[in-house]
Amino acid sequence: MTKILVLGGGGMIGQKLAQRLPGAYPDAQVTLFDRAFPAMGAPCKQITGDVADPATAKRLAADRPDVIFHLAAIVSGQAEAEFDLGWQINMMAMWHLLGALKDEHDASGGSYRPRLVFTSSIAVFGGPFPDKIDDEFLSAPRTSYGAQKAACELMVSDFSRKGFVDGISLRLPTICVRPGKPNAAASGFFSGIIREPLNGQDAILPVPDTVRHWHASPRAAVGFLLHATGLDTERLDGRRALNLPGFSCTVAEQIEALRRAAGQEAVDRIKPMPDPAIMAIVDGWPRDFAPNRGIALGFEAERDFDEIIRVYIEEEISSSSSVSPVR
Amino acid sequence: MTKILVLGGGGMIGQKLAQRLPGAYPDAQVTLFDRAFPAMGAPCKQITGDVADPATAKRLAADRPDVIFHLAAIVSGQAEAEFDLGWQINMMAMWHLLGALKDEHDASGGSYRPRLVFTSSIAVFGGPFPDKIDDEFLSAPRTSYGAQKAACELMVSDFSRKGFVDGISLRLPTICVRPGKPNAAASGFFSGIIREPLNGQDAILPVPDTVRHWHASPRAAVGFLLHATGLDTERLDGRRALNLPGFSCTVAEQIEALRRAAGQEAVDRIKPMPDPAIMAIVDGWPRDFAPNRGIALGFEAERDFDEIIRVYIEEEISSSSSVSPVR
Repeated sequence: MTKILVLGGGGMIGQKLAQRLPGAYPDAQVTLFDRAFPAMGAPCKQITGDVADPATAKRLAADRPDVIFHLAAIVSGQAEAEFDLGWQINMMAMWHLLGALKDEHDASGGSYRPRLVFTSSIAVFGGPFPDKIDDEFLSAPRTSYGAQKAACELMVSDFSRKGFVDGISLRLPTICVRPGKPNAAASGFFSGIIREPLNGQDAILPVPDTVRHWHASPRAAVGFLLHATGLDTERLDGRRALNLPGFSCTVAEQIEALRRAAGQEAVDRIKPMPDPAIMAIVDGWPRDFAPNRGIALGFEAERDFDEIIRVYIEEEISSSSSVSPVR
Repeated sequence: MTKILVLGGGGMIGQKLAQRLPGAYPDAQVTLFDRAFPAMGAPCKQITGDVADPATAKRLAADRPDVIFHLAAIVSGQAEAEFDLGWQINMMAMWHLLGALKDEHDASGGSYRPRLVFTSSIAVFGGPFPDKIDDEFLSAPRTSYGAQKAACELMVSDFSRKGFVDGISLRLPTICVRPGKPNAAASGFFSGIIREPLNGQDAILPVPDTVRHWHASPRAAVGFLLHATGLDTERLDGRRALNLPGFSCTVAEQIEALRRAAGQEAVDRIKPMPDPAIMAIVDGWPRDFAPNRGIALGFEAERDFDEIIRVYIEEEISSSSSVSPVR
């Protein structure tokens, strides 16, 4: 039996991961943890609570899960607006989790050493950027969300170096096309301008269509997470925070792909409405990568934006098993 | 009046800083904080306490110092040996300090925004390294000390970006020649092999003389700190962690400089005694830098190792005003 714990298991990626875990681990016993869960969610054991509460970390660690996915986070827009809450949820929760896992490691005489897969973000990078960000470019974030993720990466790496956990931090590209309702992420419009028109609704575009960004689908994201559980972490050579493959394109190129998938009528649903607050955040985000290490380690993403749109249509429109996320 | 608070004010750099502050700030009211102070220390107000205690941070912040130097740390060797203590002193103390300063900022209606000068370290970098580390090279530390310093840098930058403090993180080169007794820093021998022979004592060399490293004198370090208090932080463009100038040389080149300063007799005092634990730590440390930003911002260090030895002789042997450090 493989005990698997998913922190943030009620979220969009958490739910998709939960649905695919039994295929990847036939002997999996999956526990999802979140502050809330969707009504028709994945059929797993659910625990509700506050991820930033030290007692929560202790309780979850006491079960000694073999694999832990830490996906729980306050999204970028909210972390910018609610400074204290962002640091508590996005950094201190990791601090408490690692401390609790180390206590279990110590109590086990050193035999307990779980695989910890942490969803970091390309928001750990801040401009000015090179044309393509390589695997040795500095983390100098320009958002609280990015700073919190980068601080977690440092902790995951150091607790891993000491052998208390066996961790890896995945710097997810912006996940696109997110299903369901818009969330408070400043990056939400990258999905909204595709999702809303495909569902016959208007979408707001708060930035110029020249904005370039780095994308991967929710399916690719779940693929990253599953691939990370089986990776030989010795191959990381101590650098446990990884840039991942994705697809770089401008908003205009996204819109052209939407036109190819759903016609001019869909494109006409996109309404430009500049938002300086969102532009200020997005201006500080990366645009393109050369993720050579991630590719060499076997991580895979879509190769064009048409494919990213096809994944959305297959998983959310053609299929009847779509999940309603709560966040 | 300029209220100045020095955390770690009982340490070697803190004491040297305290002696130079009245020259730099004639109106300075200096408070030193540390767990202990040297008996014949700098004549300033002293507060003794635990820097990792949240109540300490609150109490120190309540005085609303205009300038805060945060030099307090567990050194690298001890942080490696005492994992929990290292994270508490080297990271959580900064977390509590920033939180307390933000509370004062909020309570002041936003007018209180102290200059915070944090002594980070080149230990934020981990190999493999380029020949010279430039200003865009990633922080991927290979020691707990380095990870803790890097996490603090992220916090200082984000709290500064939001305007709660006006911070800068200085990645000090290894400070050489440290006066006084050896400390628990793995880098201690870089000073020991010069200091002990100059004082007629034997010194242990735990690494091969081919090891290359990055040095600056205590005098240069105090110069960095003072320069940082007057810097226009707008010029940092949001990247508030700085590589600083220093001098790169091998242990063999250090020894040649010692020979020029004090003859073969001094060199004969150096006893090679390989220590795998120290070699493992030092192997993960940087060797050379191209600190273009730091130089452009006006930071200055010695230009050769002979000058570094001369500073030691001037300040610690020729002078009668030498300070006995406690750490």
